[in-house]
Amino acid sequence: MSLPPRIEIREEGPREGFQFEKGEIPTDRKVALIQALAGTGLKRIQTVSFVDPRRVPGMADAEAVCQALRPPPGVAFGALWLNAKGFLRALVAPNLTIDGSVSVSASEVFGKRNQNRDREQDLAAAAALMALYAENNIPFARATVMAAFGCNFQGEVPVSAVTDRIAAILALAGGVGLPPPVISLADTMAWATPRRIATVVGAVREKWPELELSLHLHDTRGMAMVNAWEGMRLGVARFDAAIAGLGGCPFARHAGAAGNICTEDLALLCAESGIETGLDLEKLIEAGRLAEDVVGHPLPGRVKQGGMLRALA
Amino acid sequence: MSLPPRIEIREEGPREGFQFEKGEIPTDRKVALIQALAGTGLKRIQTVSFVDPRRVPGMADAEAVCQALRPPPGVAFGALWLNAKGFLRALVAPNLTIDGSVSVSASEVFGKRNQNRDREQDLAAAAALMALYAENNIPFARATVMAAFGCNFQGEVPVSAVTDRIAAILALAGGVGLPPPVISLADTMAWATPRRIATVVGAVREKWPELELSLHLHDTRGMAMVNAWEGMRLGVARFDAAIAGLGGCPFARHAGAAGNICTEDLALLCAESGIETGLDLEKLIEAGRLAEDVVGHPLPGRVKQGGMLRALA
Repeated sequence: MSLPPRIEIREEGPREGFQFEKGEIPTDRKVALIQALAGTGLKRIQTVSFVDPRRVPGMADAEAVCQALRPPPGVAFGALWLNAKGFLRALVAPNLTIDGSVSVSASEVFGKRNQNRDREQDLAAAAALMALYAENNIPFARATVMAAFGCNFQGEVPVSAVTDRIAAILALAGGVGLPPPVISLADTMAWATPRRIATVVGAVREKWPELELSLHLHDTRGMAMVNAWEGMRLGVARFDAAIAGLGGCPFARHAGAAGNICTEDLALLCAESGIETGLDLEKLIEAGRLAEDVVGHPLPGRVKQGGMLRALA
Repeated sequence: MSLPPRIEIREEGPREGFQFEKGEIPTDRKVALIQALAGTGLKRIQTVSFVDPRRVPGMADAEAVCQALRPPPGVAFGALWLNAKGFLRALVAPNLTIDGSVSVSASEVFGKRNQNRDREQDLAAAAALMALYAENNIPFARATVMAAFGCNFQGEVPVSAVTDRIAAILALAGGVGLPPPVISLADTMAWATPRRIATVVGAVREKWPELELSLHLHDTRGMAMVNAWEGMRLGVARFDAAIAGLGGCPFARHAGAAGNICTEDLALLCAESGIETGLDLEKLIEAGRLAEDVVGHPLPGRVKQGGMLRALA
């Protein structure tokens, strides 16, 4: 057991949540939540996705959101894109910190369903983005391996598929002179358990001991916290999280998928475990309650309901 | 790390849930849920509480529930009582397995609020019950130490208060010729974190290496699963759990308290970790959905929404 003394939590709530929610959320409410998050100690907040508004209507106002953002000093507002078109939109949007990222799927079945790309097409799309980053002197910050722990459509995903995708990304990056990025292992469909976390993290570490790893964990099967804990026990020090558990609504019958691990719940675990996050738990709880207000329905995070560990007056 | 090869899950959902829910649940619906649970592989199901119906209206039909129960072979239907009056009601109720239990609070502040008993009164009540068990040849199965990990009213609860209560229970039991019971460490107000689990379990183990320990974990702060995992890593092999996470409703604004760790979610973690439970996950998921139907609102368990780890057709 080697818990890291400090972890970095990257906030994914606005991006995950606003693209998932069914009803329209006014732009100024999105901005209000992002600005509230910017006051909690979070250093990196994913705000919008530059994706096809016909596929993701909740992100049709991405540019308008960016226009209204006011990043405080030391806080980076980031965005997601999945292809060159999205990247070029991000590049001209104001108030964002632009660093390069790519996403590939360890499950070919999921890759086809999600982006209509097989392994080769997936890697070709990543290569095209990396070439753009190299050309535009954009730092290459992160490569996400989706479905790294299993897949609703393919079932088990072999660890060799994860290491295969990482090897390909590193080779492609090296080919255009980019340094190795942080590797985000994404439990896109919530198949991870502590055992799978240990297996996959262990295999990646064995091959590339120097790579920085990050975990992106969904709570669809209630395992997000125990998986994060197992990751921390293995020394992983970077986690994505979503305020209030934004990004899915297990309580609405239209979808079984839950959001990311809840930021404030993870922050409480860290605070009680001697792991620094730099986050203000009280402000996170306020932001979690604001998130519920913005989306207009209950969100799954617990600490915003249960309260901090403090004796009641 | 020494995960137990097998754990025993004791179902607390009906008891926890029916006493918590605000609306009236028809007796036959309670019975239907208990009987469904009895078909999942659970060997011990807590069904009702024999408590003051003025304080707990949801348990006013305890006798009627028992009357309608049909315990299958090998399944014990249990009940809770907190004093001699309740025990004597349980003793004449049909279809129950009667074994003795006592509950004391490690937090004196909580004991006073919950039962209006200070430490001495708490232990005197437990002693009175133990004397009844000895007289009536009732096996003494379990002593619960409530608020073992912290208290909303007192704040931190020193480990010495937990060991003090256990020592007192063991002395009282020995005094009337009863063997040491299983000690249930109850996180009544959800203050536990993995670190507190390790501290308290460690301290109890150090003093009484031979005692059998059980954990009763609430999910009010989202820590139930990671706490159970830490317990299992320490070799604890008995857990209370509640189908669908019954026992609280964090999504209703009237209460921040959440229910017990969710039975089917815990069963999934075990199944994926090589820990036997003897439970049928599919039947548990069905029972979890029935529980939601019976209480008439969403319950927090995740696997009933997210599904098993199985590729979709």
